[in-house]
Amino acid sequence: MSEFKLQVSRRQRSTPYTPRVEALGVSGYSVVNHTILPKGFQRTVEEDYWHLKTHVQLWDVGCQRQVELRGADAARLTQLMTPRDLRNAEIGQCLYAPMIDENGGMLNDPIILKLAEDHYWFSIADADMLLWAKGLATGMALDVRVDEPDVWPLAVQGPRSDDLVARVFGEQVRDIRFFRFERYPFQGHDLVVARSGFSRQGGFEIYVDDFALGTYVWDALWQAGDGLELAPGCPNLIERIEAGLLSYGNEMTRENNPFECGLQRFCQLDGKLEYIGKAALLEIAGKGHDREIRGLLFDGDACPAPQYPWPVTIDSKQVGYVTSAHWSPRFNQNVALAMLDRGYWDESTAISVRSGDGLQRNGVVTALPMEEQ
Amino acid sequence: MSEFKLQVSRRQRSTPYTPRVEALGVSGYSVVNHTILPKGFQRTVEEDYWHLKTHVQLWDVGCQRQVELRGADAARLTQLMTPRDLRNAEIGQCLYAPMIDENGGMLNDPIILKLAEDHYWFSIADADMLLWAKGLATGMALDVRVDEPDVWPLAVQGPRSDDLVARVFGEQVRDIRFFRFERYPFQGHDLVVARSGFSRQGGFEIYVDDFALGTYVWDALWQAGDGLELAPGCPNLIERIEAGLLSYGNEMTRENNPFECGLQRFCQLDGKLEYIGKAALLEIAGKGHDREIRGLLFDGDACPAPQYPWPVTIDSKQVGYVTSAHWSPRFNQNVALAMLDRGYWDESTAISVRSGDGLQRNGVVTALPMEEQ
Repeated sequence: MSEFKLQVSRRQRSTPYTPRVEALGVSGYSVVNHTILPKGFQRTVEEDYWHLKTHVQLWDVGCQRQVELRGADAARLTQLMTPRDLRNAEIGQCLYAPMIDENGGMLNDPIILKLAEDHYWFSIADADMLLWAKGLATGMALDVRVDEPDVWPLAVQGPRSDDLVARVFGEQVRDIRFFRFERYPFQGHDLVVARSGFSRQGGFEIYVDDFALGTYVWDALWQAGDGLELAPGCPNLIERIEAGLLSYGNEMTRENNPFECGLQRFCQLDGKLEYIGKAALLEIAGKGHDREIRGLLFDGDACPAPQYPWPVTIDSKQVGYVTSAHWSPRFNQNVALAMLDRGYWDESTAISVRSGDGLQRNGVVTALPMEEQ
Repeated sequence: MSEFKLQVSRRQRSTPYTPRVEALGVSGYSVVNHTILPKGFQRTVEEDYWHLKTHVQLWDVGCQRQVELRGADAARLTQLMTPRDLRNAEIGQCLYAPMIDENGGMLNDPIILKLAEDHYWFSIADADMLLWAKGLATGMALDVRVDEPDVWPLAVQGPRSDDLVARVFGEQVRDIRFFRFERYPFQGHDLVVARSGFSRQGGFEIYVDDFALGTYVWDALWQAGDGLELAPGCPNLIERIEAGLLSYGNEMTRENNPFECGLQRFCQLDGKLEYIGKAALLEIAGKGHDREIRGLLFDGDACPAPQYPWPVTIDSKQVGYVTSAHWSPRFNQNVALAMLDRGYWDESTAISVRSGDGLQRNGVVTALPMEEQ
C-alpha cells in the first residue's frame, strides 16, 4: 500500500481516542468523513489479520460520523433516502441500507440505527450524507432536524469481544442479537452498544455520546483486557476483502448502482414504497445490470494496493477492474475485490490482473465472502 | 505540523498530476474532497514560502473538485445557495461565494465560475457540496443537472506566473483581469484559464477538463519554466495565514456564520433577493455576532500546527481559539488565524496562546491580511 505523510490539522479531525492510539504507536491514518482513521500499529497487516481472527481488538472508528434525523418527518425522510424497506423496522435495530440518488447511483451504505419512531442515526461511510439529508429536508420543507451529534463510535472486534465488553458493560451484553443495540449506563451516560462492526469476526460498536467521555470508555475497555491479548486495531484490509465487506469510494461510487454492488436484497422494488431513485432502479432491474462485484484470487508476490483501479483481463480484453487488493497469508495468494462485466463474473472464471507494479498475474473469480480453498 | 503516514487507495483519489508530483519527490499529502493534495516537496515550509513570494510554482490542486449546475434552473439554484448577490454576475467571472445552510452556518466557500447563463461550476473547499446541491434540486424538483465533471484544476502561483503561463497559452493571458477567466486552446480542448488561486502572490488556475490531458498540461508548463526557477509547490500555510485566506474546516465550520468569518461584504441582506439562510442572517445581523476571525502574532519558538483549536486567553479567561498557526520567517514570530470573542478582537489587543506543546505564549491581535510590522 502506498504510504506518504499525512498532514493533520483541525480540518482533518482528531477523535476522542486519538491521544490513546498515538500513545500506542499508531503508524498511519486514512481520512474518512473529515476525520482520521488509524491504519496500523506496530504489526504488519498480515500479523494484524491473524490477531483479529484469534483475539480481540479496540478500534478508533470515530470517523463513522452519525447523521441524526429527528422530528415528525424523520421516518419519512429516512425511507426516502434508501431502497431498503423500513416499514417493519424496530426500535433497537441496526439496518444496513444502501442510499442512492435519483439515477440509482450509490451515495453511501450506512448502518441506520432506529432510536425512536422519530429519531434515527445513520452511521455513515465516507461522504457528507448530512448535506444530502439537509438538502432534501430543506428542499421539501420537511419537519425534521438534521445534525451531526457529538457521537464517536468505538469498536470492539474479534472472537473474544463478548468477554471484553461484558467485563465493562455487564454479562447481559452477550444477549444482544446481531445488528441490534441496547443501552447501558456508563458514568451517567446511557450508551448505545450495538452488535455490529466492520469485520466478520464478531464484536460491538459503542456509540460514545460525548467527546469528553471518550478516553474514559477507551481506558475502561483497555484496562479490562487482562488475559485476552487485547490490542489496538483497525479495519483489516485482508479480512475485509475475504469477508466481502465493501468500502464506499473503493468498491463503489456514484457511478455504481446497488445491483452492481450485490445489494439486491436491500432494494424493495415491489409495491407502493416511495424512495428516491426507485424509477431508476426499476429500469435497471428491467434491463439487467452490466457488472457486479466479485472476489478474485491471483498469483504472484504480494503487490501494492491499488491507487487506481487495476484492469482485469481475459485474453487481453478488459472485463473489469480491481478496487481493493492485498496479499492473504491464509490463501497464500493475493485476494481482491473487483467489479466484473456481465458474462465474466461466474465463479472459477480464469482472469488476469495487471497490478500497479506492471506485472500480469493469473487468477480466478470467487464468490463472496471467500471460502477456504 | 503533526505528520503520520497516509494510506492511499482508490477512495482517496489521485489526480492526473499525481505521477508528476511523486516523481518530483512529494513528501506528504492532505485529503480534500476525497482527493489527495500535496503538502510539501524537498523544502521546508519556510523555504517554500520565500520561493512562492519570489518565483513561480506549479500546484496540483485537482482536489478543488467542481460541482456543475446545468439547466434551466441552474441560475436559480446557484443563487439559492449563496447570500452573495449574483444578479449582475457576468459570464467569465469568478465569484468567491460563502454558502450557508438554513441556520446561516457555513457549508463551504467556493469560487463560482459563471460559464453561461445556465451553466455554473463551484470550485469547492472540503465538503461534498454536490450532495447539498443535488438534495436541494431533488427536494425542490428543479430542472437542473448537478454533477461532478472530469475537471482537474492546476494552479500556477507566484509573481512570475504571467511569464510562465504566457509561454504556454500566449501573451494574451497577461490581460486576464483578477477573478476573470478566458478560454484558450490546448491540444483540441478549450481550457478555462482563470486569474485566481489560493495565495496572494498572483497567478492562474487552469481547469483541465479531461483526466487524460492532465500530464500534457503539466509537462507543457514544466518544460516552459527555463530561467524562472519554477518549482512544484502547494498552498503555503505561512503565506495563507498572513494573507488571511480562510480554509473551510480549519477557520470555519457549520458552527460559524459568514459574519464571524469576516464575509459580510458577500452577504446581501437588503431587498428581495431570496436564498437559503437569509432569515437567519437577518436575525444574526440584528443581534450582532459574537466572535470574528482575526490574525495573531505570538512569541516563543516555532510551535507545531494545531490538531485541536488552541485556547486564546487574556488573564486566564478564554476569549477565543487558534484555528491555524505556523512560524513566520518574515515576522520572526508565530502567525495564526484565530476566532476571537466580541470585545477582544480589536487590533493590538494583548493575548496569550496555549499551544499544543503546552507552552503559554504572549501575543497580539492583528488585522487581516497581516502587514509588515
